[in-house]
Amino acid sequence: MTPPGSPSRGATSSSAKRGPGGRGAGLSRGQIVDRAIALMDAEGPQAMTLRRLARELGVEAPALYWHFADKGDLCREVVRTVGERLEVSSTTRGTPRRRLEHHFHAVRDHWRAHPGVLELSRQFPPSAAGSVARRGLELVEELGVAPRDSLDCYRSLSWTVTGFVILEQTLGQSVHHRRIGPSRWVLDLDDGSAPSAFDTDELFRTTLGLALDGLERRAR
Amino acid sequence: MTPPGSPSRGATSSSAKRGPGGRGAGLSRGQIVDRAIALMDAEGPQAMTLRRLARELGVEAPALYWHFADKGDLCREVVRTVGERLEVSSTTRGTPRRRLEHHFHAVRDHWRAHPGVLELSRQFPPSAAGSVARRGLELVEELGVAPRDSLDCYRSLSWTVTGFVILEQTLGQSVHHRRIGPSRWVLDLDDGSAPSAFDTDELFRTTLGLALDGLERRAR
Repeated sequence: MTPPGSPSRGATSSSAKRGPGGRGAGLSRGQIVDRAIALMDAEGPQAMTLRRLARELGVEAPALYWHFADKGDLCREVVRTVGERLEVSSTTRGTPRRRLEHHFHAVRDHWRAHPGVLELSRQFPPSAAGSVARRGLELVEELGVAPRDSLDCYRSLSWTVTGFVILEQTLGQSVHHRRIGPSRWVLDLDDGSAPSAFDTDELFRTTLGLALDGLERRAR
Repeated sequence: MTPPGSPSRGATSSSAKRGPGGRGAGLSRGQIVDRAIALMDAEGPQAMTLRRLARELGVEAPALYWHFADKGDLCREVVRTVGERLEVSSTTRGTPRRRLEHHFHAVRDHWRAHPGVLELSRQFPPSAAGSVARRGLELVEELGVAPRDSLDCYRSLSWTVTGFVILEQTLGQSVHHRRIGPSRWVLDLDDGSAPSAFDTDELFRTTLGLALDGLERRAR
């Protein structure tokens, strides 16, 4: 909080704490959430502090407290907002297999676009996760998997995809992997075995393809 | 470092820094590595400092430097030692499918036994990873997958299993999951959808089963 009379960046900041006439009202919740998402995606959830966010938005921190009780409150809204975007983008047409492919490609693309929020989703309820899972579960049953097996199968697919995305996001931290293109990497274990190149987009298609081929085998 | 003349825990600690007669020689490399593995598995790689390790072994830190140049040197040895144990335990008999199941169950069991070392393996060369992968690759080809596809398929299976283990290890940090048994959890998204229970051992069998069923479909 800015002490009374201390130097402040903006001319009106000392009246910004509360009320529709202050700076808190000049900023919408949506603007704050969008900037928070961008900051977390670029630098990770740790980088997102209300102080840093206020600086980027050109306001004092109290203006943010007009909209959010604390960082936890803002994080909850970030996870909810990002989750809603996934909900919209995972609907499509075609055969159940085609729609399941689309569903999980959308999940991967979603988390690739929001790497910082994936980590945060363990701590705050991902509001849309339930409805995304229900849609995926329906698709597994439409493919012909018995309802008694469908949840277990959907959960397996979901873990396969989420685990893939987590590994993909940490390749940059691995001393054994070297990036050679937007989705191309070289694995070099430095143990005498030959280095091998792979493409994460192709690898994702294979990984999801194997699981969906297996799923089709369990369909009636 | 203990300053000369300061109180010390052990009677011989001031002569422990170097040479076969000091405490450095009294402790074997294997003893130090075993204790380091146990500490990392119990509390994570961050908890493992040479100072902490020396305290647990009842020696002064310099005794450890007699065996290892620095923490990085010890970590490298930890990853190598743990990797060698996996190499031994992943061999078995039976059909290629059965041996692939055993192979990946061994990988999961291995990382479950050494959660701290999984994280460390991104930073230090996992010496046995190459030979484990070569054996897995052979099994994929024995199953009947064409050599031109086998590496991509093995890598997909490996990512599926490693991603599963990472998710499994972080369930305890998720606010949405509650443990109700050794391998049983309840997922509650707190969004109006019904909580659902699952067993990670069963889920692993399903996840690996789907991928291996898919793999068999690609076999000649």
